[in-house]
Amino acid sequence: MSTPVVTAFDRVPDFAKGLVRDLRVRWAFEELGEPYSVEKFGAANARPDGYVNWQPFEQVPALRDGELELFETGAILLYLAEKHGALLPQGEQARWQAIAWVFAGLNSVEPAFQRYFAYHVFNAGKDWAEEAKEAVLPLLRQKLKRVSDALGDKDWLAGEFSIADIMMVTVLNNLRETDFLDEFPALSAYHARSTARPAYQRALAAQLADFTGDPPAGRD
Amino acid sequence: MSTPVVTAFDRVPDFAKGLVRDLRVRWAFEELGEPYSVEKFGAANARPDGYVNWQPFEQVPALRDGELELFETGAILLYLAEKHGALLPQGEQARWQAIAWVFAGLNSVEPAFQRYFAYHVFNAGKDWAEEAKEAVLPLLRQKLKRVSDALGDKDWLAGEFSIADIMMVTVLNNLRETDFLDEFPALSAYHARSTARPAYQRALAAQLADFTGDPPAGRD
Repeated sequence: MSTPVVTAFDRVPDFAKGLVRDLRVRWAFEELGEPYSVEKFGAANARPDGYVNWQPFEQVPALRDGELELFETGAILLYLAEKHGALLPQGEQARWQAIAWVFAGLNSVEPAFQRYFAYHVFNAGKDWAEEAKEAVLPLLRQKLKRVSDALGDKDWLAGEFSIADIMMVTVLNNLRETDFLDEFPALSAYHARSTARPAYQRALAAQLADFTGDPPAGRD
Repeated sequence: MSTPVVTAFDRVPDFAKGLVRDLRVRWAFEELGEPYSVEKFGAANARPDGYVNWQPFEQVPALRDGELELFETGAILLYLAEKHGALLPQGEQARWQAIAWVFAGLNSVEPAFQRYFAYHVFNAGKDWAEEAKEAVLPLLRQKLKRVSDALGDKDWLAGEFSIADIMMVTVLNNLRETDFLDEFPALSAYHARSTARPAYQRALAAQLADFTGDPPAGRD
């Protein structure tokens, strides 16, 4: 069997470091204790020919595992969990609860954060963006409250650590430059507990180490 | 076996009729030829006690199937497809491609439409909303182009009709009051082909018929 391949960028702006979504897939591989290799592109390396047929939005990550080519982090996490029989609880209710939370992270929670950042980062300084940002805050806080309430006093969203937590924690990472998480102590502790996992730390270090796309200082 | 239960609203504003997400689940049941029953709430009926434990965001739909309680339309579609061995292609690549498109509909496509509608409907008339709406248009069109390119000349996203199409078509439904879809003839034809399916028509009619929450005209 060949080692699975994950695509990643070789350079991103500083504000995106640690937020690029291949982190989710790297984290899953680290939790599974399975090797993977990285196919990098962006600054120093061109996208592979026909990448759009593998990743229709030409984003990262995409996964190649033998004959299989796959995109979307939610689908990749689910594929890896099913393939390895891990990172998903065994019981039917808990298993589907975990899968539901993978979807919830992507559709019920993350879009509110993306709207916030569309104004806060990508349109910063425009008058309308300030008002648009204010308008999305109640939704953003409501989403955090819902996740916090659902977590309750559990350590993990579906009882045991699962792909639901890989998804939700990397979604929460988008708030790292803000204080919103501090308003929800249970969620803040959940985030700290998750990112302290050695597998997370290894995945993050590997992603950051792969940002080698800046021209070498001595180049002439 | 008891009939599976889907939650739905008994009343929504006119602009939301046909867009509420239980349509996705009803459509899947109709394609499967499987019966389901509806638990309605909103105007005339209270939410069931403890609904938040079933649907953490207190939205609709949620599914109950025997002992299993599930939320998130993506997870519900996947569950129904796996349970019935239908609405997902058999081959591994095509099966995962379909699952990837379910996620893509929810996370790579729908959020751009939601941003548009946050300005176009929910904040209509505010000066900042007009500028915010303009700012999201390139993203919205890029998403449509990507889906259209990926569809190409195929009838369905994953080769045969699948839960990927149920997801993407109901995501595209959000554009019904706009002309954006007309800019992408293949996508427009795909949407027309999908919504002409008898199962879709039955699902939509059933959803609309369930909006009975208005007080009777003669009430005194």
